[in-house]
Amino acid sequence: MVTSSKRTYASMSNLPGLLQSVFLTLPQTTVNTYLRQRLLNTHRQHGVEETAAECRKLGATTHVFVVDCSNREEIYSSVNQVKKEVGDVTIVVNNAGAIYPADLLSTKDEEITKTFEVNILGHFWITKALLPSMIRRNHGHIVTVASVCGHGVIPYLIPYCSSKFAAVGFHRALTSELEALGKTGIKTSCLCPVFVNTGFTKNPSTRIWPVLETDKVVRSLIDGILTDKKMIFVPSYINISLTIERFLPERAVAAINHVQDIHFEAVIGHKIKMK
Amino acid sequence: MVTSSKRTYASMSNLPGLLQSVFLTLPQTTVNTYLRQRLLNTHRQHGVEETAAECRKLGATTHVFVVDCSNREEIYSSVNQVKKEVGDVTIVVNNAGAIYPADLLSTKDEEITKTFEVNILGHFWITKALLPSMIRRNHGHIVTVASVCGHGVIPYLIPYCSSKFAAVGFHRALTSELEALGKTGIKTSCLCPVFVNTGFTKNPSTRIWPVLETDKVVRSLIDGILTDKKMIFVPSYINISLTIERFLPERAVAAINHVQDIHFEAVIGHKIKMK
Repeated sequence: MVTSSKRTYASMSNLPGLLQSVFLTLPQTTVNTYLRQRLLNTHRQHGVEETAAECRKLGATTHVFVVDCSNREEIYSSVNQVKKEVGDVTIVVNNAGAIYPADLLSTKDEEITKTFEVNILGHFWITKALLPSMIRRNHGHIVTVASVCGHGVIPYLIPYCSSKFAAVGFHRALTSELEALGKTGIKTSCLCPVFVNTGFTKNPSTRIWPVLETDKVVRSLIDGILTDKKMIFVPSYINISLTIERFLPERAVAAINHVQDIHFEAVIGHKIKMK
Repeated sequence: MVTSSKRTYASMSNLPGLLQSVFLTLPQTTVNTYLRQRLLNTHRQHGVEETAAECRKLGATTHVFVVDCSNREEIYSSVNQVKKEVGDVTIVVNNAGAIYPADLLSTKDEEITKTFEVNILGHFWITKALLPSMIRRNHGHIVTVASVCGHGVIPYLIPYCSSKFAAVGFHRALTSELEALGKTGIKTSCLCPVFVNTGFTKNPSTRIWPVLETDKVVRSLIDGILTDKKMIFVPSYINISLTIERFLPERAVAAINHVQDIHFEAVIGHKIKMK
């Protein structure tokens, strides 16, 4: 979570690399608070502390809150703590994510549950906790970090794709409801990148899409927040490709998927393979 | 759940009217088993018993299993019971659904959780339980009942829309994975109707879309299953409208939504209103 003198940024994330860049790029001079999740491994925790240190070097006041984004009660109590210690949040980036690449029958039930708890239910709890003060002020920005997998699908990622479709639906329905309520001062954005080079997916490669560096994703997110862009695809041409797919017969879409030749490490038949 | 002499139909449903028509329309002579969920109120339970009675009148052997489709363990144990008492399932219709029309801040946490448990996680557990025997035989059909709300959004239904987007993503990713695994004998369909006149949504009305009778939806579903149609919109022109929306600027989409003038009973600011 990051605040300037007038605005507070909250980011629920397991991508410290991405977050670090977001915080360092945001055009505010004071960085105050930093909220992230407990699911991270030591390496990633280290990344978060490094980010906080970088922010402090820039003269920013930075708070780190450790939250398990799959745990509703913990989210609510942390948000309360943030409100007391830092104040109302203006921009929230719901960025925590879980992914378990595997065929459906090799995916454990607990992995499916965790995917939905983190990738979509967490968004509900954080938004419910922060929305009342945004509605009171008719001011704020809610960023849903989804994925291109929230629009198009990839085999061996059924729970991930399904949860990211849910995130896109959440963003779109929330946008529509805020408008129906006349709360046009509360903005929304949905970030949909292809694979990002954060170690989140092991050894990703495709023949058509690039594997993105975090800098590129962050630049797009910042531009999107600053220009109140609703749906932010990275790279932006992915949107065109997804739209064209809607007009093609199923066989043509299957052929395109074959040409895309997407590979990553996944558990197939309970064994780790490149798929 | 319904079986013919050669094929077994399983339907997880809280829409007995819809199911009854499905069972009575399917071109098989013997109807054996009927699986439905415990969430139903008395009226709906009555509907299920009536359906079973109608099936039996047609000379079909009909089994009724009562299952709470939000409860993973209960789903697994019921599917095991079905396998023992009836045999392998060939066609499964994942039709159970939960909906709580309300603005996000009036929606209880338990209602959000229940929406996801029934509308998407239940699909995962049922599919995981039934898929192994389908894969072994490379034969079967998995029907995901989603909604037009899995493609386009409506205010005061954020959890419902998000869970239906998840169901559409589940169907598409499952379709893609079965193809990648070479299991082309297992078919998939996704049913996306607008409002159906089943009492599921209270007093629905729109200026453009019809409120559908179950007969119309069932006819489309049966046609879709028989012709292995992947995405079944009812009415079918809704797909065109959703596609056009993708090319329009946000303001134009907002204007279309205004013209559509969708109304139903919802809890707004913790009070029941027509919205």
